[in-house]
Order: sequence, then C-alpha cells, then structure tokens
Amino acid sequence: MNLWTIRPIGFVKENVIQIHKQWVKGLEGIEDFSHIIILFWLNEAKTPKLKIHPKGIKDLPKLGFLATRTPHRPNPIGMTVVKLLKRRGSKLWIEGLDAWDGTPILDIKPYTKKDCVMKFCIPAWVHQLDKLETGPLRRYGN
Amino acid sequence: MNLWTIRPIGFVKENVIQIHKQWVKGLEGIEDFSHIIILFWLNEAKTPKLKIHPKGIKDLPKLGFLATRTPHRPNPIGMTVVKLLKRRGSKLWIEGLDAWDGTPILDIKPYTKKDCVMKFCIPAWVHQLDKLETGPLRRYGN
Repeated sequence: MNLWTIRPIGFVKENVIQIHKQWVKGLEGIEDFSHIIILFWLNEAKTPKLKIHPKGIKDLPKLGFLATRTPHRPNPIGMTVVKLLKRRGSKLWIEGLDAWDGTPILDIKPYTKKDCVMKFCIPAWVHQLDKLETGPLRRYGN
Repeated sequence: MNLWTIRPIGFVKENVIQIHKQWVKGLEGIEDFSHIIILFWLNEAKTPKLKIHPKGIKDLPKLGFLATRTPHRPNPIGMTVVKLLKRRGSKLWIEGLDAWDGTPILDIKPYTKKDCVMKFCIPAWVHQLDKLETGPLRRYGN
C-alpha cells in the first residue's frame, strides 16, 4: 500500500499564520490575493466512523463522513478559504480560520475563480445546520 | 520535526473517482451536492523551487511558489473543485479534475457556501495567465 509523508510548513496562532523560515521566499506575491486557501493538519482528529450525524446533531440525518466536513477522516487534512488581511515577512494575518492555536499548516494556495462556483446545490440538512450554527444558543456551543 | 503519514482512499480514471471498498459507506449522501472538493496527491511533483514563473511562462512575473498553484510544493497536495455528475456505489462521475489517470485521491469534501467567496481580488498576472491558457494556441499546450 502507498503511504506518503507530509510535514508542517508553518503553524497558526491567533489568526496569524507563521511560515517556517525555509519557505518564506515562497510567499512573495501572495499579498496580491484577497483570499487564500489553507490546508492544515487536523491533529485532534480521531479514527473516522463511516456514518455520522453532522456535528453530532441527532436531528440531522446520518450520512457518510465524506458527505460532511467532519475532522475525523482517513487523511485528516482541513481546508478553509480565508481572507488575507496583510503579510509581513513570514507572517500572514488572516480572517476566518476556525483552527486551534498551534495547528500545523500544510499548504497555502491562492484563491482564484476556478475555486469559486457561482451556482451550486447543497442538501437541506446543510441549510438546517447553518441555521443551528448561527442561532444565538449554539454560536459558542459545539 | 513532525511528520505525518497519508494514504490514498481511491484513485481517478477517465473522470471517474473510484473509492476503495473500506470507505464506500462514507460516500452516502454525497450525491446530494452538485460540487465537491477533491484533495489528491500530486505524485509527479518535484522538489519545490522557492521562486518561479507561473507555469514556466517567462512573460509572467517571478513569484513565490505559494502565490501560485504549481504542483511542486513541500506537501504536494492538489485541490480542485469539481462538478459531481452522479454516484454509483464506489464510483463518482465528475467534471473538471485536471489530473492524470491513476492519481491518488486523499480526501473528498462537499462544496458549501463557506468555500464560495463572492468578492475576491487576484493580481493582474492571473488574468494574463487565464488569457494565455484559453487562447487557441495554448489550450493543448503546457
């Protein structure tokens, strides 16, 4: 069986991504994008269960984990689109990364129009989840 | 130094993703999304150069590799948003994945509105690259 090795190129702390010295030159020009895609290692991830209720909410249907954004996946790689506020050397100030301090960064990619789908469909349970998550009672919950 | 291991959960062949048996149940419900995000292993990737001309085009500025989508990255993980046409068991028919047959699939995530940025900025060279790539002379080129 094929196995590959990956390693952090930086880490996140308080909405700032700190890139390791050896890769800093690789950031040049990224500040001209308003948004970037962050790939990070979900180091709190557990063994995946094949079928789950999204975010453990029993009111939502039980689905395959690949139909959800659960962190518990065979390759626990998180992916989030964030706003890039500024860069100073090895540091990127960002907005919108929902990751613990210390989370290892695996890759950064510029966000371009190929990443942006204008018309897409999502199932009803995603709308339901959005409502629950932005509701006042759950905002600081699970 | 931290190192982690990743492994394929499937592979792509002629615009069909074939998921390995052990993860098939994890696909249930994915057919209700019109678009999915594919993370794949860029197994042709070479050692990254810190600064490059995008796609090797000398007319474009020399930039840090992290400001481009070059496959030659410290963690050669590709990410593409694709249209999901249909699912039959372990197979997903997709549209828009620019990857060689046999490319290993690392993860699949449903595309939701958090992945869709309505207003974003890209630098001039990306527009320039888009023009070159869709021009009749380069369409089947590099």
